Parts: sequence; structure tokens; C-alpha cells
Amino acid sequence: MTASDGLHPATEDIRLPTVLAALADPARLATVQTLAQVGESACTQLQEAAGLSISRSTFSHHQKVLREAGIISVRIHGTQRLLSLRRTDLDACCPGLLDAVTSARADSPQPV
Amino acid sequence: MTASDGLHPATEDIRLPTVLAALADPARLATVQTLAQVGESACTQLQEAAGLSISRSTFSHHQKVLREAGIISVRIHGTQRLLSLRRTDLDACCPGLLDAVTSARADSPQPV
Repeated sequence: MTASDGLHPATEDIRLPTVLAALADPARLATVQTLAQVGESACTQLQEAAGLSISRSTFSHHQKVLREAGIISVRIHGTQRLLSLRRTDLDACCPGLLDAVTSARADSPQPV
Repeated sequence: MTASDGLHPATEDIRLPTVLAALADPARLATVQTLAQVGESACTQLQEAAGLSISRSTFSHHQKVLREAGIISVRIHGTQRLLSLRRTDLDACCPGLLDAVTSARADSPQPV
């Protein structure tokens, strides 16, 4: 993904401070760490796999923040919203960052 | 630095979401990127080297956020406050993160 489609920022518009701010929330960090493990996932399955006991609307908000920061891509397939990491685009913006945050030890306080 | 001295968190208390939140501000990110280049520095010289046109009190606030997140260490030498990166402690918490953020391309909007 290079050019913006109105929903996702173009690769060259991904900014490190925005990416860091999006990742700084424990629930969003758990979402990204889980996506790195399981690959493209439907919302509901992803939320469950990430162990996030939050409302659907809160999870939707977190998805929006991650999407607008350029961290995740969302595509519609039938009735499902499928989420995946924009690994190539993130590696262009900030090489090594995604690997660092997804391999970090998971001893942070549980997201709520 | 392992145990907390009341000013700096102990290594085991450094949390990835807190580190990411501290780094998400452009002025703090520039401070950390500059410290990675120049090594331990006095406040005034560091602010100048980082190109930060902000008040001394705002820069002090940023230092406090970075210190409380476990990213920088502050020591007093005579009349100077010397700042340095806690690289070893950060690498224990989140391997590769510091390298990723300090080597990222510097095309973010200028901090103000």
C-alpha cells in the first residue's frame, strides 16, 4: 500500500511519533502483538486472541487509531472486517520498530 | 542502574507502553535521538543540539517524562544536570526499540 485510499495513510505519510503514540496504549499494543503472531484476522477473533475484555465500540476505536497511524490495514471480506499489519510500510518508516514492540516481554499490566 | 533511587524507575519497572508514550512526543523523540548521537550531555547543550526552540521549563518537563519512563538518567555534576540514555536498561525491557527509534528517518514535522 503506497497511496492513501482515504482510510489508510500513504506509506510516506506514516510518522514515527504518531506510530509510537498509537502503540503506547496497552490494548492497542496487545492487538498489534497478537496480529504479529496470528496474521490477518477478523475483528472478533482478534479481540479474543488478544485477550481484550473491552466493549466492541472501544475495540473499534482502537482499530481506528491503529489504522490512521498506518499500523494496520483493514479490508472487508463478505461480512467480515479483516485486520492485518502494514509490516512493509512500517519497516519503510521505522525499520526494526515493529519487531522490537512485538518481541518485547509481555509483563506489562493487563490491558483493561 | 537496577534499583529505583526515587528519581529513576528500577530496570524491572520499565514498561513498554510508558516508554512508547514518552517517545511519542516529537520534542522528546528529538531529545532521545540527539542523546544517542552525542552521548551524555548537559541540559542546555542537549537542547541546543536537538534544535528545540522551547522554553527551559517545557524542556524540563520533557526531561521529567523521559526520566520517569526509564529512558534517560539524570546526574548532577557541579552546577550541571547531565543527561544520558539508559540503553542497557531499555534493551532489557524492549530489545531493539532504542535502535529503531534513534535510527528512524528524521522527516517528521519539526518539534515546536
